[in-house]
Amino acid sequence: MFEARFQSFDDPQPAQTGPRVQALRAELARLELSGLILPRADRHQNEYVPPSEERLAWLTGFTGSAGTTVVLADRAALFVDGRYTLAAKTQIDTSVFTIVPIADTSPERWLEQNLPSGGKLGYDPWLHTAEGAERLARACANAGATLVPVEPNPIDTIWTDRPARPLGPVVLHDLRFAGEATNAKLDKIRAEIASLRTDALVVSDPHAVAWTFNIRGSDVAHTPLPIAFAIVPKQGRPTLYIDSAKLSNAVRHKLEEATEVREPTAFVSDLKALGEAHRTVRLDQATGAEALSRIIGEAGGKVTRGLDPIAMMKAVKNPVEIEGARAAHRRDGAAVTRFLAWLDREAPKGQLTEIGAVEALESFRRDTGLLKDVSFPSISGAGPDGAIVHYRVTRSTDRTIAPGELFLIDSGGQYQDGTTDITRTVAVGEPSQEMRERFTLVLKGHIAIARAVFPEGIAGSQLDPFARQALWTHGLDFDHGTGHGVGSYLSVHEGPARISKLGNTALKRGMILSNEPGYYKAGEYGIRIENLVLVVEGPTAAGAEKPLNAFETLTLAPIDRRLVERKLLTAAEISWLDAYHARVAQELG
Amino acid sequence: MFEARFQSFDDPQPAQTGPRVQALRAELARLELSGLILPRADRHQNEYVPPSEERLAWLTGFTGSAGTTVVLADRAALFVDGRYTLAAKTQIDTSVFTIVPIADTSPERWLEQNLPSGGKLGYDPWLHTAEGAERLARACANAGATLVPVEPNPIDTIWTDRPARPLGPVVLHDLRFAGEATNAKLDKIRAEIASLRTDALVVSDPHAVAWTFNIRGSDVAHTPLPIAFAIVPKQGRPTLYIDSAKLSNAVRHKLEEATEVREPTAFVSDLKALGEAHRTVRLDQATGAEALSRIIGEAGGKVTRGLDPIAMMKAVKNPVEIEGARAAHRRDGAAVTRFLAWLDREAPKGQLTEIGAVEALESFRRDTGLLKDVSFPSISGAGPDGAIVHYRVTRSTDRTIAPGELFLIDSGGQYQDGTTDITRTVAVGEPSQEMRERFTLVLKGHIAIARAVFPEGIAGSQLDPFARQALWTHGLDFDHGTGHGVGSYLSVHEGPARISKLGNTALKRGMILSNEPGYYKAGEYGIRIENLVLVVEGPTAAGAEKPLNAFETLTLAPIDRRLVERKLLTAAEISWLDAYHARVAQELG
Repeated sequence: MFEARFQSFDDPQPAQTGPRVQALRAELARLELSGLILPRADRHQNEYVPPSEERLAWLTGFTGSAGTTVVLADRAALFVDGRYTLAAKTQIDTSVFTIVPIADTSPERWLEQNLPSGGKLGYDPWLHTAEGAERLARACANAGATLVPVEPNPIDTIWTDRPARPLGPVVLHDLRFAGEATNAKLDKIRAEIASLRTDALVVSDPHAVAWTFNIRGSDVAHTPLPIAFAIVPKQGRPTLYIDSAKLSNAVRHKLEEATEVREPTAFVSDLKALGEAHRTVRLDQATGAEALSRIIGEAGGKVTRGLDPIAMMKAVKNPVEIEGARAAHRRDGAAVTRFLAWLDREAPKGQLTEIGAVEALESFRRDTGLLKDVSFPSISGAGPDGAIVHYRVTRSTDRTIAPGELFLIDSGGQYQDGTTDITRTVAVGEPSQEMRERFTLVLKGHIAIARAVFPEGIAGSQLDPFARQALWTHGLDFDHGTGHGVGSYLSVHEGPARISKLGNTALKRGMILSNEPGYYKAGEYGIRIENLVLVVEGPTAAGAEKPLNAFETLTLAPIDRRLVERKLLTAAEISWLDAYHARVAQELG
Repeated sequence: MFEARFQSFDDPQPAQTGPRVQALRAELARLELSGLILPRADRHQNEYVPPSEERLAWLTGFTGSAGTTVVLADRAALFVDGRYTLAAKTQIDTSVFTIVPIADTSPERWLEQNLPSGGKLGYDPWLHTAEGAERLARACANAGATLVPVEPNPIDTIWTDRPARPLGPVVLHDLRFAGEATNAKLDKIRAEIASLRTDALVVSDPHAVAWTFNIRGSDVAHTPLPIAFAIVPKQGRPTLYIDSAKLSNAVRHKLEEATEVREPTAFVSDLKALGEAHRTVRLDQATGAEALSRIIGEAGGKVTRGLDPIAMMKAVKNPVEIEGARAAHRRDGAAVTRFLAWLDREAPKGQLTEIGAVEALESFRRDTGLLKDVSFPSISGAGPDGAIVHYRVTRSTDRTIAPGELFLIDSGGQYQDGTTDITRTVAVGEPSQEMRERFTLVLKGHIAIARAVFPEGIAGSQLDPFARQALWTHGLDFDHGTGHGVGSYLSVHEGPARISKLGNTALKRGMILSNEPGYYKAGEYGIRIENLVLVVEGPTAAGAEKPLNAFETLTLAPIDRRLVERKLLTAAEISWLDAYHARVAQELG
């Protein structure tokens, strides 16, 4: 019997928006604030946040992974990006909140136009980066108002049955998966701190904490994160701030070989101490809350902000992680291949729904015996649902996979040796000629990336056009990036490298990225062909002046050849396709 | 007899650096400043500056088109980019100035490391953009020092024989070249001002002034600019601030049909008046000096900064400008083709030098009877000189064009109907097999751009990789962008569109850009193949969802087919090459 244990399909429950907003407005009046800005964020700018941090959803009913609300005395707006404009309409009470597409009006612009002059807009400095808070402050000033930090968050005052913070158990990430001991990693981090001419680095990204201390947790869904902070000084032992309730004695003892371990409550006082000692402290511009800058600065310290040096270190996988990724992909590929074979038998019967497919696929992955979680909730789109790029199937949207349609399924697994992410688009019954042609144009883009050869130093932005060229010549394109970085039993969406228009980080050997061009025909079907690729040494070229890199495709699962129009492929592309399937057959046995 | 009237080949004269820096230090001490930062810039951030603004060259002897110096009491640094590190060593007195490659240490970083704590660094607020000044202010603050505006520029106090400001005569740019009357352009500008929610636009870019008011000037070399400012209010007549000595009565009367005309001295007082009336004034972030923000802000006004709306308007050429560009390129192409034929006869004799080639080419262009100027000083590189991307030949560097070498010549003309820019690389005698192969890889990149088909909305950064792909697979690349925008009898380097890694402006029909990939082997030879291209409507594709664009190649001159290794070309590339030469033959008659 198939079932999904790591994902659910419940429809979001409407929130009691009216009373909650009323309570918030009363609290804001008590605090003498004109309004509150509230993003969908936790203290670490995580993509997946613990239930205790889902303030935006509690207040508005909106459950998308990104959004912001501004609540003033007499009006309230919910800012959403293109992914969520339709979903938001069904989830929120539009008599209380106006939905504002963020591409039309940013929160800053809306504030300039709606904040009363002389007003005070409250914000929680733990939920905004310093740059984000600066932009809000400028917008408030432009409106003749001021931005005022509020602690505690007014939501926490009125959300009386707020869930407790997560206390997921922490496990050690064994060296046979991690490949590099914590002390070696700390040496590299300290060298970076010295070259940045700073006294200490605050590690605000829990992914970076997990990587540095070789631990994994279970505080959020789909990524094995321990929510924690750390401070690494230029010299001496670092300190890890984490709930002791998450640590068994064995884990604590192992950690203490490399680091001090203190409760989260000590974090703020230790930041203050750094400030009082007039230290220069480096923060991560992407995940460091503005509260950190305030605390250090107000105590007398100096703050510098920039790219997290640990982000680049963990993006480049070491040889053990690389072998782990290969093993995880053989395992995951076998499960997906079994699923695709089962799907080919089941779908034509006309009884299988999108949810059924997700349950089956997850069950095939669990049958490996090594699945720790799915790496994200599966995107399972039959027919027109496949054209909704961020479609999430629920009980009410569930749709039967019908003959004559395309079925798109994007899924992945978390294994201790690697994180996977794969999309396959399959024909159910007889596909139209247009579906086959457009699938083939997407495939040409996928193959162009898979076969790319590029010098050291080239960034993902400089490869992205090759994924689109075939579509472009037909007046088509896809409205998302070609690829994102992937972690090692960490986040399935890992920076800093990306294959996209704005992906400006140089690609380095050892990085793992996705290769996922697509094409979406609204109301009809969606196509995406995704494999993960590893940056490796490229072929030797006579007279080369720069080292060459290439991609090794990690993902092993058949591509639906009934959708391939071979007439549109070049000889080299046909050759790649045949070689890929031969390799799948050989490696999966 | 051939001669160059629009360019010279004089070696830069060494400057009397010692006494001048001494005088500067004395003046700084009198002003109680710890130092001065001095960029190579005028009040409009022009690429070519009038002699009266060449302060950096006067002080340091450095004549490159970009650089900055910081002079402190006991040390001085000259910051140069990669183009000029070698040239700087020969031009400056290294006992007075330390050359600092800007890629290693930025001025801001150097200041943080060298400014004395409590010190005051002077800067001329007319020579820095607001963003540039902000970065300097932060760097000073990080060093415990302050950034202090100084007017007049201390150089002007000690440079007692400074040339007078330019008073080049202004001519009207006839409607048969401009294609759109000033009042129509002003209507569009006022619509932009309204949508930006601002009260007035300051036009600080003289190129934008020229375009808006359909005038051309002669205040700098190679670009027909009238140095001037303008203010365009949301409603009512604009004001043009320009030396009346530049205007004949006829030109003044014509201008006054559309705009007030006032002396440059009125500009600052009119900015103050806007401030005192609490207006919101929009500045160009690229060319607006920080002085403008100060004046308006200190008087009580509000300043917003962003991309110059006029920049985008003039980047998209109207039908008259487009026809003018085609005519100018037929004319210029005929001249270049005659030159190339002459070169083929002369060069093998072994007597022709780089300077001789430049003189000949300019003479062929002048023979058209319509050449107004060269659009930039020609780059004329024989043999190893071709590998120096920004090579400028002088009497002392002049080199004979020898058989067995490649000769690279990059040149262009200014005509009232268009601006041209073309690079040809020719073989003198017998080229090596490596030269032919690498020339062909560059040609493949050039053809990929020439044949590109891309949807509306695609930016130059998304085409740049196609120019490099063939080189990449051989472990090669070129260290500059693939293309820059070009004006219409205006700047040969016109933003905002670029075909380069950072070219993020969408390409629109009517834009003119260069297509100039290259390959440079230091110490041996350089290859560049450059044509200008016009963005036009692309082919119709069945089922297309987006409008398609393509390039029409404007430049008409033969490419040296002795350097083409046809075995490396695809059938489509050979077809393009043959069709191009057929078109050249046909259009040039």
